[in-house]
Amino acid sequence: MKTYRVFALRLRHLTIENSGNGMRRIFSIAASFVLLAAFAHAQTDPLPSWNDGAAKTAIVNFVKAVTDSAGKDYVPPADRIAVFDNDGTLWAEKPVYFQLLFAIDRVRALAPQHPEWKTTQPFKAAIEGDFDALAASGEKGLVELVMATHAGMTTEAFAKIVGDWIKIAQHPRFKRPYTDLVYQPMLELLNYLRANDFKTYIVSGGGIEFLRVWADRVYGVPPEQVIGSSIVTRFEVQDGKPVLVREDKIDFIDDKAGKPVAINQFIGRRPIFAFGNSDGDLQMLQWTAAGDRTRFMGLVHHTDAEREWAYDRNSAVGRLDKALDAASKNGWTIVDMKRDWKQVFPFQR
Amino acid sequence: MKTYRVFALRLRHLTIENSGNGMRRIFSIAASFVLLAAFAHAQTDPLPSWNDGAAKTAIVNFVKAVTDSAGKDYVPPADRIAVFDNDGTLWAEKPVYFQLLFAIDRVRALAPQHPEWKTTQPFKAAIEGDFDALAASGEKGLVELVMATHAGMTTEAFAKIVGDWIKIAQHPRFKRPYTDLVYQPMLELLNYLRANDFKTYIVSGGGIEFLRVWADRVYGVPPEQVIGSSIVTRFEVQDGKPVLVREDKIDFIDDKAGKPVAINQFIGRRPIFAFGNSDGDLQMLQWTAAGDRTRFMGLVHHTDAEREWAYDRNSAVGRLDKALDAASKNGWTIVDMKRDWKQVFPFQR
Repeated sequence: MKTYRVFALRLRHLTIENSGNGMRRIFSIAASFVLLAAFAHAQTDPLPSWNDGAAKTAIVNFVKAVTDSAGKDYVPPADRIAVFDNDGTLWAEKPVYFQLLFAIDRVRALAPQHPEWKTTQPFKAAIEGDFDALAASGEKGLVELVMATHAGMTTEAFAKIVGDWIKIAQHPRFKRPYTDLVYQPMLELLNYLRANDFKTYIVSGGGIEFLRVWADRVYGVPPEQVIGSSIVTRFEVQDGKPVLVREDKIDFIDDKAGKPVAINQFIGRRPIFAFGNSDGDLQMLQWTAAGDRTRFMGLVHHTDAEREWAYDRNSAVGRLDKALDAASKNGWTIVDMKRDWKQVFPFQR
Repeated sequence: MKTYRVFALRLRHLTIENSGNGMRRIFSIAASFVLLAAFAHAQTDPLPSWNDGAAKTAIVNFVKAVTDSAGKDYVPPADRIAVFDNDGTLWAEKPVYFQLLFAIDRVRALAPQHPEWKTTQPFKAAIEGDFDALAASGEKGLVELVMATHAGMTTEAFAKIVGDWIKIAQHPRFKRPYTDLVYQPMLELLNYLRANDFKTYIVSGGGIEFLRVWADRVYGVPPEQVIGSSIVTRFEVQDGKPVLVREDKIDFIDDKAGKPVAINQFIGRRPIFAFGNSDGDLQMLQWTAAGDRTRFMGLVHHTDAEREWAYDRNSAVGRLDKALDAASKNGWTIVDMKRDWKQVFPFQR
């Protein structure tokens, strides 16, 4: 905000020298200066919620390098593919993945029709709200729970269930909608990349049809740029109307080695920019790093127990261990949430 | 080209009335007129290779309706999704699918290492060039043949094999590269839709990684907008380099009921515009038709044995039977190639 301060000083200087009727004119000129300064500032700082430091510098330098058409690292717009993990990278993932909390709500709603769930895992844990038992079942367990509780309806019916839930459900700690727990610095990063002709993709271990319901509204990422885990769908004609029915069968788990596979399948180009936060993102980062020319690989390191959470190598949810070592070894950018982010959530101003 | 003729006549008229030094000025003015006329013409006819008729009118009226922001049928750009089958819709598919001809070339190249292929179908037919036997194996047979002959290498190695082949291979009838056998009217349609903010997708029974090598150059459709059949790929690190290895296992067949499934999986939006040419496209057209608001469903009917081929209900390749009945019953647009297309291939001028 240096530029702003310069103009504020100039404003004070001018008002001292003048008085009476002249004041109005001075204020008018000063207001223009302030607007101009704010504009200049917005142009020079696309990432206002990022503190100055190595992470922010690495991002800005990378974007400048690949968009400089005269430079050696120039990348044509069509090849500016950026991929982001979702849980723990774009929004929070504690106490457990939010989609798991959605699944728990569904299990409880459907439990009266499934008495056997009271004694079967992971349903028992879901009904009892036993996060430790649930977290221990891992990303795969989450996907299974979601599949088991969300199959048998059409894709349209499922989208409605998710849409209804995301509007009213609240996070247990922050007592706010889950979509409020997105990271302000990452929203700025998504916008910054798109303003520089990047195509931004989400590549999540979470369910593709869970994410697509709200990703466009919350992140500005349209459905066709959301990649995730999926269950099998079946085309059929019901009462003369063609529908897609969700079967209780896992189609694809978009985690770990599945991420580069899905990136190749959906995008067909190798990303030049990848951001994750856990060991589930390691192969996506490796795949991105293995391309020619300059690339950017980043990790969000959760180090802020006060504003968010602090966890890494020993967390059941979002474990960051091997990927942290790989990042250090290969010089990937590690974002220290506490140090690098001025603000975490949009509501924490 | 009416407008052009009017200005050409005017040019002749002016040159008769003038002479000597004035000529240069007249030519300059006339050249401006001609340029203007060509521009006016380009603006009024986005589909010059289409004869005036019901098909062309239906396309133009649909595009006008969904792009008129004041009209009741307006569709915001983000929802302007158009899907096209490839074989028989964007390029020819006779004597058999071109990817099958690619597979035949690969089978012959690899045959010395596979003596058992001499007595096993569909390899025997491939080696012997027995198109009837191959066509009888259908789209699924094609995919199997492709998988069997194209697995075991990395995705990058496969892309190179396809790229090398498509440059030198020639169509048996036309003695030209296969990519010359694209339909000029459909290239114009793709451009016309994109000029009206449609996102154009290919949804093909053919292999996704076969198509992506050349679809951008030939159709202007980037890799991330190409959907097709696929084999399983496996992420692994070879000599420290992460690669994706193509396994000899079918992942997904993007044909018939698979097409709406893939559209939902890859795009996550229902198209408002769909074009096919065979029964393999029926479910894609039904899925498109089942959405709200106005939509366009079209079929290319191969009726021109002279410039291309004539076939429909009894063809093993590109059979058009149930979809033709559905189109008639539902009022979908049927393009009669002989009647509706002024020109078929770009080289037939």
